[in-house]
Amino acid sequence: MKPDDLQALLEQVASGDTSVQTAQSQLAKLPFEDLGFARVDHHRHVRTGSPEVIYGPGKTAEQIASIVDAFFRTGQTAIVTRLDAEKAAAAQALLVEAKAAAQYEPVPRLLVAGEPLKAQGQGTIAVVCAGTSDLPVAEEAARTAELLGNTVERYTDVGVAGIHRLFAVKDKLQAASVLIVVAGMEGALPSVVKGLVPSPVVAVPTSVGFGASFGGISALLSMLNSCAPGMTAVNIDNGFGAGYAASLINRVGLQS
Amino acid sequence: MKPDDLQALLEQVASGDTSVQTAQSQLAKLPFEDLGFARVDHHRHVRTGSPEVIYGPGKTAEQIASIVDAFFRTGQTAIVTRLDAEKAAAAQALLVEAKAAAQYEPVPRLLVAGEPLKAQGQGTIAVVCAGTSDLPVAEEAARTAELLGNTVERYTDVGVAGIHRLFAVKDKLQAASVLIVVAGMEGALPSVVKGLVPSPVVAVPTSVGFGASFGGISALLSMLNSCAPGMTAVNIDNGFGAGYAASLINRVGLQS
Amino acid sequence: MKPDDLQALLEQVASGDTSVQTAQSQLAKLPFEDLGFARVDHHRHVRTGSPEVIYGPGKTAEQIASIVDAFFRTGQTAIVTRLDAEKAAAAQALLVEAKAAAQYEPVPRLLVAGEPLKAQGQGTIAVVCAGTSDLPVAEEAARTAELLGNTVERYTDVGVAGIHRLFAVKDKLQAASVLIVVAGMEGALPSVVKGLVPSPVVAVPTSVGFGASFGGISALLSMLNSCAPGMTAVNIDNGFGAGYAASLINRVGLQS
Amino acid sequence: MKPDDLQALLEQVASGDTSVQTAQSQLAKLPFEDLGFARVDHHRHVRTGSPEVIYGPGKTAEQIASIVDAFFRTGQTAIVTRLDAEKAAAAQALLVEAKAAAQYEPVPRLLVAGEPLKAQGQGTIAVVCAGTSDLPVAEEAARTAELLGNTVERYTDVGVAGIHRLFAVKDKLQAASVLIVVAGMEGALPSVVKGLVPSPVVAVPTSVGFGASFGGISALLSMLNSCAPGMTAVNIDNGFGAGYAASLINRVGLQS
Amino acid sequence: MKPDDLQALLEQVASGDTSVQTAQSQLAKLPFEDLGFARVDHHRHVRTGSPEVIYGPGKTAEQIASIVDAFFRTGQTAIVTRLDAEKAAAAQALLVEAKAAAQYEPVPRLLVAGEPLKAQGQGTIAVVCAGTSDLPVAEEAARTAELLGNTVERYTDVGVAGIHRLFAVKDKLQAASVLIVVAGMEGALPSVVKGLVPSPVVAVPTSVGFGASFGGISALLSMLNSCAPGMTAVNIDNGFGAGYAASLINRVGLQS
Amino acid sequence: MKPDDLQALLEQVASGDTSVQTAQSQLAKLPFEDLGFARVDHHRHVRTGSPEVIYGPGKTAEQIASIVDAFFRTGQTAIVTRLDAEKAAAAQALLVEAKAAAQYEPVPRLLVAGEPLKAQGQGTIAVVCAGTSDLPVAEEAARTAELLGNTVERYTDVGVAGIHRLFAVKDKLQAASVLIVVAGMEGALPSVVKGLVPSPVVAVPTSVGFGASFGGISALLSMLNSCAPGMTAVNIDNGFGAGYAASLINRVGLQS
Amino acid sequence: MKPDDLQALLEQVASGDTSVQTAQSQLAKLPFEDLGFARVDHHRHVRTGSPEVIYGPGKTAEQIASIVDAFFRTGQTAIVTRLDAEKAAAAQALLVEAKAAAQYEPVPRLLVAGEPLKAQGQGTIAVVCAGTSDLPVAEEAARTAELLGNTVERYTDVGVAGIHRLFAVKDKLQAASVLIVVAGMEGALPSVVKGLVPSPVVAVPTSVGFGASFGGISALLSMLNSCAPGMTAVNIDNGFGAGYAASLINRVGLQS
Amino acid sequence: MKPDDLQALLEQVASGDTSVQTAQSQLAKLPFEDLGFARVDHHRHVRTGSPEVIYGPGKTAEQIASIVDAFFRTGQTAIVTRLDAEKAAAAQALLVEAKAAAQYEPVPRLLVAGEPLKAQGQGTIAVVCAGTSDLPVAEEAARTAELLGNTVERYTDVGVAGIHRLFAVKDKLQAASVLIVVAGMEGALPSVVKGLVPSPVVAVPTSVGFGASFGGISALLSMLNSCAPGMTAVNIDNGFGAGYAASLINRVGLQS
Repeated sequence: MKPDDLQALLEQVASGDTSVQTAQSQLAKLPFEDLGFARVDHHRHVRTGSPEVIYGPGKTAEQIASIVDAFFRTGQTAIVTRLDAEKAAAAQALLVEAKAAAQYEPVPRLLVAGEPLKAQGQGTIAVVCAGTSDLPVAEEAARTAELLGNTVERYTDVGVAGIHRLFAVKDKLQAASVLIVVAGMEGALPSVVKGLVPSPVVAVPTSVGFGASFGGISALLSMLNSCAPGMTAVNIDNGFGAGYAASLINRVGLQS
Repeated sequence: MKPDDLQALLEQVASGDTSVQTAQSQLAKLPFEDLGFARVDHHRHVRTGSPEVIYGPGKTAEQIASIVDAFFRTGQTAIVTRLDAEKAAAAQALLVEAKAAAQYEPVPRLLVAGEPLKAQGQGTIAVVCAGTSDLPVAEEAARTAELLGNTVERYTDVGVAGIHRLFAVKDKLQAASVLIVVAGMEGALPSVVKGLVPSPVVAVPTSVGFGASFGGISALLSMLNSCAPGMTAVNIDNGFGAGYAASLINRVGLQS
Repeated sequence: MKPDDLQALLEQVASGDTSVQTAQSQLAKLPFEDLGFARVDHHRHVRTGSPEVIYGPGKTAEQIASIVDAFFRTGQTAIVTRLDAEKAAAAQALLVEAKAAAQYEPVPRLLVAGEPLKAQGQGTIAVVCAGTSDLPVAEEAARTAELLGNTVERYTDVGVAGIHRLFAVKDKLQAASVLIVVAGMEGALPSVVKGLVPSPVVAVPTSVGFGASFGGISALLSMLNSCAPGMTAVNIDNGFGAGYAASLINRVGLQS
Repeated sequence: MKPDDLQALLEQVASGDTSVQTAQSQLAKLPFEDLGFARVDHHRHVRTGSPEVIYGPGKTAEQIASIVDAFFRTGQTAIVTRLDAEKAAAAQALLVEAKAAAQYEPVPRLLVAGEPLKAQGQGTIAVVCAGTSDLPVAEEAARTAELLGNTVERYTDVGVAGIHRLFAVKDKLQAASVLIVVAGMEGALPSVVKGLVPSPVVAVPTSVGFGASFGGISALLSMLNSCAPGMTAVNIDNGFGAGYAASLINRVGLQS
Repeated sequence: MKPDDLQALLEQVASGDTSVQTAQSQLAKLPFEDLGFARVDHHRHVRTGSPEVIYGPGKTAEQIASIVDAFFRTGQTAIVTRLDAEKAAAAQALLVEAKAAAQYEPVPRLLVAGEPLKAQGQGTIAVVCAGTSDLPVAEEAARTAELLGNTVERYTDVGVAGIHRLFAVKDKLQAASVLIVVAGMEGALPSVVKGLVPSPVVAVPTSVGFGASFGGISALLSMLNSCAPGMTAVNIDNGFGAGYAASLINRVGLQS
Repeated sequence: MKPDDLQALLEQVASGDTSVQTAQSQLAKLPFEDLGFARVDHHRHVRTGSPEVIYGPGKTAEQIASIVDAFFRTGQTAIVTRLDAEKAAAAQALLVEAKAAAQYEPVPRLLVAGEPLKAQGQGTIAVVCAGTSDLPVAEEAARTAELLGNTVERYTDVGVAGIHRLFAVKDKLQAASVLIVVAGMEGALPSVVKGLVPSPVVAVPTSVGFGASFGGISALLSMLNSCAPGMTAVNIDNGFGAGYAASLINRVGLQS
Repeated sequence: MKPDDLQALLEQVASGDTSVQTAQSQLAKLPFEDLGFARVDHHRHVRTGSPEVIYGPGKTAEQIASIVDAFFRTGQTAIVTRLDAEKAAAAQALLVEAKAAAQYEPVPRLLVAGEPLKAQGQGTIAVVCAGTSDLPVAEEAARTAELLGNTVERYTDVGVAGIHRLFAVKDKLQAASVLIVVAGMEGALPSVVKGLVPSPVVAVPTSVGFGASFGGISALLSMLNSCAPGMTAVNIDNGFGAGYAASLINRVGLQS
Repeated sequence: MKPDDLQALLEQVASGDTSVQTAQSQLAKLPFEDLGFARVDHHRHVRTGSPEVIYGPGKTAEQIASIVDAFFRTGQTAIVTRLDAEKAAAAQALLVEAKAAAQYEPVPRLLVAGEPLKAQGQGTIAVVCAGTSDLPVAEEAARTAELLGNTVERYTDVGVAGIHRLFAVKDKLQAASVLIVVAGMEGALPSVVKGLVPSPVVAVPTSVGFGASFGGISALLSMLNSCAPGMTAVNIDNGFGAGYAASLINRVGLQS
């Protein structure tokens, strides 16, 4: 049940077009549906303005298919994150109602069932990426933001070791309303970008690197300790989280 | 030089009211002034929409006074962060031009010279705080956001151990356009709050705690690993950074 | 040899129904039996009130089968933990006396030979689980508690990101005599639950998560630093340990 | 307001001896009282069966005195933890209503206002301590348990380096209904004790040690990795938390 | 070249039975032989009293075979450590001179070419092991000590959770001249053993455990922080290092 | 475009032999070429005096082939690092223009297309290696330095446990103009070498070791904490970075 | 009670010179004496061959004085470690029986009451020290070994940065029966020394250093990962532990 | 004794102007002088081309004065590092021969006795500094390089948050023969600088920052993981080490 549906229902109750009893039964599934192994949060969309997202790892294909179907049945879009291709195929085969609607995107490792949200955000979200190796995380952020109804522009391979590549797109970056900056290794790119632009920056450390990069800790610490204020950070490799947060930020001041 | 001033100057040049030579000499200090030990970034306000902020630790009172005066001379507001009371008093005594204008606020440990920005943000920024011991960091966030031109509401001591205290203010939290949630120890509060509200949350871990809180690492990790999407984090005890980022977020969609 | 058997034997000695010599030979295996590579602790049940539990990793199927048989021969229940399906099958094939009695449970990865203990605990143990991905650990805790003679109730997928799901079962949680709360990622659930219930909570961090969850460290630290007193923690992914401890707690005040 | 008081009030309402309006005004403070900087949780005692405990560090003496008075005014016992002697004296001087009742105990660093709870626990709680240097933490645990209505026995300086000292008190340890075992350095004592007793053990690592003890991390890890099941752990130096948890455990099976 | 050989050669030079020139050519390989990728240290046995040991990981089977042959050719015993079965077989197939003499021992993962040293140590070295899962490391220690000429006794599965198993062998442990104590998880066994015996203890942490055992860090820290003086530690899983050090310790006071 | 080519072009423009328009079109690709997923930095050679190096991990074979070709087309040498044999073969098969020129070197895991730089460095770079297991990293450093135009000498297996092997080559080490010293485990070799030579030492920690070597952290810390001044360090296993830095150092004072 | 005293007493019982009852009362204090806050282990000397040592930190001067007196009263030598000068003076003033006998040594921070043990060790213990800043820890080791009856030789400031200083004393080091090697910073010295000598080496990391020495972790890891077998390590700054262990090692093969 | 002196002496021996006996006595102090607590390395200057440097912390003022005098007596320059003002004054008062010559520099915390080396390096060493708070470390680097005979240029407060400040000095940075780049917090500056310049960069992390900067770890990791090759790193806050290494680098290709 999406926010608009809820509002319509309540207005019908208020106007007498729908009896309280009928409304009650329609709302019965609120706030969640118990699948046994999962309690599907049908209320989240109403409460937070964004669809439920299912964390893929540690769930079986059967569990994923059941949860996706439960959302799809109630007219909601479901997004499964961090899903490898093999499990995605198995889940797709098991889907019942959401079957035709479910698309798997291999680079950002997302399974999506239902329509993307209508464009809601203002301006554009720029997704900036330090190196080609960071692309999968950047793409997870970019696709998430697009699925949540935002216009996204991508700037790839503009790391600080050849900073003129970054400066060549400076004007475009300054025009973005929110920026997501993705970097591994020393994670310096978000600090440099934030020094150049007036908008908020969501920094995403990646696990790209070796040795003392410690699976992304080096990049994460750089982003937390940035001397350029106005930047916030998400977890290592959390492209989805960055895209989701940037989408919320891009709607501030709207009708939310 | 504030953005409005720059725009006015350039329009005068365009209209012929100011000669190019005069404009050139006024802009001569851009992009920075070299004090010997510091290069004051007069251009930052133009470039990023926010005043320069001076990181207090490791600087002498003399250095702080010089930098504050340099900003004040050019009509800009200067904010010094993480300044203890003793060094603040010494710096205030040394100030020349900014002398009368400089106010020290002991709880958030900020020294401010110049006028706060005019209200720019849309809606309100809610600053939510897990416990009384987290108050100084929360206040640093709240005051920063206020100085940068935002309306701020404070919700103190609503930690998860007595969650009904949080639920009593749920409606107000849901009405905020951005939330800053401050917590030490296990740092669970931001996740719980984000589960309740539709707006973006900036999470601030504090060093409140002992033993395995490891000076705030426990709270920081909780916030980075939150299962509630739409939250981003700043460094431990970085109230200023959270207030600054929330201010930028609160202006998304405006004329910035 | 279970505690009842020992008491009976000693009473027979006291009453003269059994000679000291006979008792001595029956007790000869106490306190342990040396299998060469392992010293089977037949005395543990008498001493601690619970059966010996065999830690599966690092042992060969042959070693596991020998140890299980040694317990089974003396009328004791044996539980092997953290055993993958392949090694379990190999061990089952090698069992001699315990063969028919040995059951493998794949989700909690337990091999059990002998009868579960008779119901001993008072009230119920509630096993609460933050997300579907945490289920295997939660199930290891729940089954352990059941095998040790307790009534267990399960509450799955009630994480803090949709806290109304948790509140829907609040009354049941408040009625439990002990609670086991299982969570990965930021590990906030036990703090929230403990704030709601009067009974002791055993918190179990899981390795569910990625990046800065550091294999469960984030969740573990949250639980150790909880602001809600009355919670204690076990090792990451240690469902067995939590079930065992909860079982002991649930018997406090009984005939122990 | 203690649980008995609440029950009495509600029974008076049920019998008509108290009007709903009167009850309503008496219950008006529920669930908390807003002191501005703190929201006092008057409901906690009803909800969790134990009094609110105030975490001392990071609070001013003024804040502590206000909170203690707020509890005292409503007939509740207040316990302030981790309070150094100097701040305790300052707070005591500022107390208004709770003045005479407030006692400071320097070894466990507790400030207590109001009467200890009536004996509620069954059997005894044994507090076992590895070395003399661990005494302050052990005493914090012991006094907490006593204040919460339990009978406590102390066993000091029975570390594993001279294990015969521990064995000399083995029978008494086996008779306890719950054990709190406190150790720094290598933190081996709880494992050894748990191997000897049938009751649950709450392990408390201390920061006693130097070099690679890393402020208690070594002891904490030992306790989390114990090969003796039935043990759970609390945070480093968290004597209060252990005493509180042990008290809850000691009431399992009672009228809770 | 072993120490006895060197002494004999020098005495022949002194007595004139061997010319300086002849001795010179025999000693020409001292102190090492350059194989291109390795410099074989033929002098080590003379200098340190023990044969060279080759660290297996990271070396190809070809490199291992060449080094073993180089030692074997000069009459020295070569020991390769941490060698998996597959690479051992490949190396054995490639050996030329040392072919027949090379034995692979799968549990301690040692490849040995040449004769073990004659018994040199005084008394016995006791190898004590906390659990069956620790056996491979314990066996690496035991076999190393045996190959270096010591009498070794093994005590397996005597962990602290059932401490009576340890006490049953207390007299034998007290009779050993050196003890190697191997334990994973919380690593408490060496502290308990050292509290019981007068001889030096070499503690070996193992990576047995899960979660917060952090691959042996927990056990290692326990051993470094032991409250029982007279214990020293080696690296995690370093059974070889412990056996080697114990062997040197067992020869102190002899003619070395 | 190499530095010489740029200088020639500009001189032709200055002399009128090349029109500005022609020069402009030739320089059009500066400073980079956008391949969509990567921005090839054709300017780097001009700017930094060394060819671009492509970090292999996380890139597909297709991406690597495209980038290598882009460099090769403009007459530049391309080096791909940390490339495993399988992906190298796939990339080589996909190369178009650079096909014949691309060589893969399996030990240092480098793919090179184009000619090595002409000898530029002064004196020799000595690559010193503690053990045979460190050879791949040492070879990566040595080959990098050779490809960048330096004379390299290799000294293998001269670890500190048999320090006479190191002393045998002391004179040669003292004659080198720069030294790269590679070591895993305790990482002591660079300190000892630096104590013996007058030239700068670049230290490379390797991940060789086990247990508390923590994947090279132990060696890295040794090198950062060296008591022998004049040493600097690179990341764990970063042979390429050491070779590159040593090459730059070896050209200091030349015409660069 | 020292071992000789015990043997004498038992022989008197055997010969009838002492009645069982008399012996019993004399032995009554065994195995420990309960001072309330401490259980003095009078049996340790008999059991382990060395006097009890009291860990100073965290104990009050009163507690230290009581424990020292308890040992002194029964004819035993007491050693207090890690005692600062101020607390030592306070404890000395409070001593009753041990008053005259108690000596405080400020560099190694030891308080000693009673006579040092008679020379027991064979050969000499060499204490080798990397730098002048490591002297206090080295002296703690040296004095401990001397108090326990060993001949000690000191070699100071022979760090690896000027390795010829170490080589100048090589012959003396090779003649020692046990070596204690003390180093901070990169902690390379023990590896180099062990490569030169045939005897066992006890390595002591110190907290000397800054930045990434992390209070001695760097040196500790170097010692645990040494490529020179035959070395074992103790805790950071644990000079006492090293001296104690070396003393036990130096008595192996004697009448212990 | 400086290298020139040694060469002169040996030439006099070769020409017969100095007898072997005389030379022998002059060289007698080589390679070191034993002060009891320190072995002064008079040979270092000859061996490594740079004067001995004394690490200040952990040494008493008496020890420092003795060592400085020992160097000064033999005509060598002595530099004491990391010396606070108080101990410096005490040491200066105790100096005998070096008294007049010893200068203390408070910002870089260096005590220098003797003349700086004659200018030896080629070109200039640029010392670049991210913020005013990093100045003391930068100054330690700059002064060290100057004392060792190099021309140094300083660029202060050019951090990445206002990158135009850095670009304003780009040409000068590109002209330097070696660069030292000093930064705390996220430590991004060295990567950006290295991307702009052709010369080798020595990166110095500082402990400037708070929270998750972990005393400089964040900056250190950034520098080790830099994506800009040609950079090497030294320990946190090790300005001296950077200045020393840069000085050696600046002499490569000279007569060393």
